[in-house]
Amino acid sequence: MAIEPIEGFLCPAAELSAYISDLLQAAGADVPSATATARAVVDASSRGVDTHGVRLVPWYIRGVEGGRVNLRPNVSFTRKAAAVGHVDADDGLGHRASFLAIEEGMAMARESGIAAITVGRSGHHGASGVYSLAAARAGFAAMAMTQADPAVVPFDGIKPFYGTNPISFAVPAPGEEPMLLDMATSAIPYNRIFLRQATGTPLPPDVALTPEGEATVDPFRATGLRPLGGANFGYKGAGLAAMVDILCSAFSGMGHAGTIPPLAGEDYSKPIPIGHFFLVMMPATFQALASFDARIGAFLADLRAQPATPGRAVLAPGDVEKAEAARRAVDGIPVDRVTWAALSASAERYGRHVPEARPTEGNRRDA
Amino acid sequence: MAIEPIEGFLCPAAELSAYISDLLQAAGADVPSATATARAVVDASSRGVDTHGVRLVPWYIRGVEGGRVNLRPNVSFTRKAAAVGHVDADDGLGHRASFLAIEEGMAMARESGIAAITVGRSGHHGASGVYSLAAARAGFAAMAMTQADPAVVPFDGIKPFYGTNPISFAVPAPGEEPMLLDMATSAIPYNRIFLRQATGTPLPPDVALTPEGEATVDPFRATGLRPLGGANFGYKGAGLAAMVDILCSAFSGMGHAGTIPPLAGEDYSKPIPIGHFFLVMMPATFQALASFDARIGAFLADLRAQPATPGRAVLAPGDVEKAEAARRAVDGIPVDRVTWAALSASAERYGRHVPEARPTEGNRRDA
Repeated sequence: MAIEPIEGFLCPAAELSAYISDLLQAAGADVPSATATARAVVDASSRGVDTHGVRLVPWYIRGVEGGRVNLRPNVSFTRKAAAVGHVDADDGLGHRASFLAIEEGMAMARESGIAAITVGRSGHHGASGVYSLAAARAGFAAMAMTQADPAVVPFDGIKPFYGTNPISFAVPAPGEEPMLLDMATSAIPYNRIFLRQATGTPLPPDVALTPEGEATVDPFRATGLRPLGGANFGYKGAGLAAMVDILCSAFSGMGHAGTIPPLAGEDYSKPIPIGHFFLVMMPATFQALASFDARIGAFLADLRAQPATPGRAVLAPGDVEKAEAARRAVDGIPVDRVTWAALSASAERYGRHVPEARPTEGNRRDA
Repeated sequence: MAIEPIEGFLCPAAELSAYISDLLQAAGADVPSATATARAVVDASSRGVDTHGVRLVPWYIRGVEGGRVNLRPNVSFTRKAAAVGHVDADDGLGHRASFLAIEEGMAMARESGIAAITVGRSGHHGASGVYSLAAARAGFAAMAMTQADPAVVPFDGIKPFYGTNPISFAVPAPGEEPMLLDMATSAIPYNRIFLRQATGTPLPPDVALTPEGEATVDPFRATGLRPLGGANFGYKGAGLAAMVDILCSAFSGMGHAGTIPPLAGEDYSKPIPIGHFFLVMMPATFQALASFDARIGAFLADLRAQPATPGRAVLAPGDVEKAEAARRAVDGIPVDRVTWAALSASAERYGRHVPEARPTEGNRRDA
């Protein structure tokens, strides 16, 4: 749950967002898509969700340049019932379609109390929590899920079948940012393997498997992730992954996770369509808003007041990220050296301006 | 995930259900409540979910006799919007209110595509999966959640705060019973501790804590459960428990888990109100039904065909229970000796007929 420190450059959120949008447009994306992608990744990075933040931009640019991404998508919304709608992302970047799903979901939830919105023919949308949080900041509770290409090995299996299939849930909280849960249904994200390869440190036990399905802590031998719950209880994490996959595929008209080609493979020339699933709820439909807010406030206060193991504190979902967001609002958003260099190379290629940034050595967090 | 064998008596489901309903009525429950409770526990036991099946009936009878349960509840449904409704369980047995929530949810989902139904002032409703499965057997997809009294220690905490707060999800599957995921957000249920005390065997590692918050495998020292994910990743299970608790309390008008007195404590004289949360979705609103069914069928077939570790098979959520249900449909439902004796004592006290049952020694499973 701790946020790993980043070595690289610090840039204020607004400048970073404008820079990313500018680079995506230079690479060929249209304005609404580039803006939505920049918004999503900077929102994730602003809270310390660096695995799903700015780090992904060079990879998105590769998809835009290579032909995977439709540069002028006709992103369309179809209302299917009072409380159900579908967004066709038309093979564009997944962020724009996902923000649209939340917008339409809020409009439906205002009328019907709750709405389900599926997204089909979409692409990677970054951190699912970005979208549930966007709804919660506007006063709604929301869940967001996405499918992804195979990385997680089914319980008792040896080969990846599920994506890391995250579940996120956000709810407005009185007097503070919304409470946000945003979790992969595996114990660790796949890129933790790459990170541990880079640092030469072992993986935690019971989270990764070799191609033969044997448990390993060696990041150079690991090729698949165990579902949350590990060797003994991984059928629970796998069951959640199945639920997420079904909601994102059978309900959206997409194929299941096992049919999705590698998103980080070698071929960036063709669309790889995936699905997302969103729920949006209007609290005031369920309870008087004052009573709802009081209950959320009491839950958070009582949870945080629970006795803790020595030197620790009991936290609510998202508390670590809230503290990090407060620091990054002052310090700027750290971008690792590799990502910064890749962005700079794109800027140079397209003749775009690189914003001012200072090395993280000056970062208060490193002090 | 394996179903533990039961020593006791075998009884066909229909006779067992009638027996349980009869005993609950003898103890004072009204017909709709007694029927719903019998239906719920026999459904759970019929699939091998023995922790939340017939075993609970003597405990429910204690609540009926002691005054915890309102014997003539005015169970009422209020529609709050096109896709949101609330059931007031009026301190009755939780099963009746939960089945009503699913019925009303299906009616709303037929119109609106999805519906959310909260239940307030309810009691223990057994296995949440019973209700999502009831919806899926009628062609709907459904989620069911419930809060419960504190048993699960928050991540980095030492004292139970969350209930085992289960999540269940069911979806119709072509040519077979619906796929059903039904899982506590802790690694093990609390009664596993009691079971291991009885058998004198250690608990699995990383699932239980002492009152001082230390990890233990000693069932006599364990007083709290770790959330799913254990010492390293338990913040994920705890986050899911928080989500379930909020949906079941702030949305239903109930207090959070930390405010719920012990459900299995000494005082059975007063109601202990808890909340549930249900989602019901109509697949045909989302996709053409033939396409939806084909996708669910392909998901299940492809998942089950995945390569497995030697001697194992990759299963879909609920597959173990489906196989057990087929056996129990033939053999009858096993009821452990302690529960059977308690039911027999109630039958004797109220002068009711005890159905024919044969010892499990004659059970084909033991052969």
